[in-house]
Amino acid sequence: MSTRDFNEHSITDAVVERFADTPDPRLKQIMQALVRHAHAFVREVDMSQDEWIKAIGFLTRTGHITDDKRQEFILLSDTLGISMLVDAINHRMPEGATETTVLGPFYVQNPPLKPADADISGGEHGVPLYVTATIAAPDGMPLAGAHVDVWQSDEDGFYDVQKPGDDPNLRARFTADQNGKVSFWTIVPKFYPIPADGPVGDMLKATDRHPYRPAHIHFMIDHEGYETLVTHLFIEGDPYLDSDAVFGVKQSLIVSLEDGAGAPPAAANKPSGTIWKRLDHNFGLKPAL
Amino acid sequence: MSTRDFNEHSITDAVVERFADTPDPRLKQIMQALVRHAHAFVREVDMSQDEWIKAIGFLTRTGHITDDKRQEFILLSDTLGISMLVDAINHRMPEGATETTVLGPFYVQNPPLKPADADISGGEHGVPLYVTATIAAPDGMPLAGAHVDVWQSDEDGFYDVQKPGDDPNLRARFTADQNGKVSFWTIVPKFYPIPADGPVGDMLKATDRHPYRPAHIHFMIDHEGYETLVTHLFIEGDPYLDSDAVFGVKQSLIVSLEDGAGAPPAAANKPSGTIWKRLDHNFGLKPAL
Ligand SMILES: [Cu+2]
Ligand SMILES: [Fe+3]
Ligand SMILES: [Fe+3]
Repeated sequence: MSTRDFNEHSITDAVVERFADTPDPRLKQIMQALVRHAHAFVREVDMSQDEWIKAIGFLTRTGHITDDKRQEFILLSDTLGISMLVDAINHRMPEGATETTVLGPFYVQNPPLKPADADISGGEHGVPLYVTATIAAPDGMPLAGAHVDVWQSDEDGFYDVQKPGDDPNLRARFTADQNGKVSFWTIVPKFYPIPADGPVGDMLKATDRHPYRPAHIHFMIDHEGYETLVTHLFIEGDPYLDSDAVFGVKQSLIVSLEDGAGAPPAAANKPSGTIWKRLDHNFGLKPAL
Repeated sequence: MSTRDFNEHSITDAVVERFADTPDPRLKQIMQALVRHAHAFVREVDMSQDEWIKAIGFLTRTGHITDDKRQEFILLSDTLGISMLVDAINHRMPEGATETTVLGPFYVQNPPLKPADADISGGEHGVPLYVTATIAAPDGMPLAGAHVDVWQSDEDGFYDVQKPGDDPNLRARFTADQNGKVSFWTIVPKFYPIPADGPVGDMLKATDRHPYRPAHIHFMIDHEGYETLVTHLFIEGDPYLDSDAVFGVKQSLIVSLEDGAGAPPAAANKPSGTIWKRLDHNFGLKPAL
């Protein structure tokens, strides 16, 4: 094929060939695959010039709304299921290891370290929830000293970083005890919408999709010799479990909240007679290679 | 398939299904095809989390360098051959109609209207070139009154808009006469690099690709009842004809410059004895549907 006469049939091979001298073989593989799939997409939909211009405009707006606080390209990747696909490919889990899901945009590095049974709700309104969790290897060996970062939205579906004020709230780090156990008080989380006032929100609207994520608590769990586990626990009964806007739900991550029985344990700030829920969960960490 | 249990195999169908209620059937088709090809790409290369983060960073930088004067997403589309593919799909040309190529980033709306035989070089250094062209229907009927916009780089490979000063230079609009003919003086253009100081330039460098486009003159030709023709004429002998950075070359658009014989025609500013070239070309316009 002459490289000076491209047509709609020959151009893909010509572009793939143009990447033949890429020194890094992995980059070469990625660029050539990108070209083939992008061209196949354009060809399959028989893209018009006008649609191409719209696509350029969409990407431009996505770039312009992205800043230090907002990552609209990640949101786009999330809402197209690409983030979860990458997550799944990179976390093929052995028996006994907890499944992963997306990190999400609301994690903050180095959350405040809290002692066992601390209340992380900071006085937020909501149904009190007492969480106990054990961190273990796939064979059940407890992982004492594991760092357990937790973060979640309030009862209205907002994270602290989305609200005025700088105080960390509903986020904390715990250290697992000799039995690999952590426990803390929080409140029952609520479903919430992803930021929907940008190009990704426009896409969701145009395609009749809602922006909601089912209620969940985020966990990031870390112990030497094991892969860092980034996951959520979703709350059974949430109306959006079957339609998470970012496709983050896995059956194994859905948990039921039990009604608390008797006086709230270890809670100085909960008068007896308080109605409360409890959540008990065991996390398994995958050994690092 | 449960929509609350995504894994690397089921997630693509789940995301495609999520677009099922898109009211506009064309948008639905495009989004579903986009998801399938994007997922197939990620799966084929077995994308790592780290590579995904790099891709997000690349798109973010591409968005941030894009402004009113610079469109890095178009440059990306151009260098991946996507622009030319879209062009080819949308301009399947009948016999007798000139082939199209990319518009490029240097077109300026409403260039200065010039009379026949005007010199558009504005005194730029270079080998004088006398261009004559006829504009016709595919059957040869001359298209009197056609607007012919021309623009090109100078002898150093720069367009006027890339240089200080506001005067339009090496760009003009001509009106075809009763025989569908236009003629003008210019200079022989030079190959030039696309802007290579941004993310797209980084990509070209990392893949051992050069940023050059072979020397060309841009034409945009317009006549009622016909599709607007956006094309170039490339100069035979250019060293980059076989490796245009944006894949814009078509064999039918490569022309030879002839040596000018005798005194330069209709050129008040060319002393006799001037060495000059000539280019004669016939353009065919495709009837509008
Ligand atoms: Cu594909
Ligand atoms: Fe969240
Ligand atoms: Fe050009």
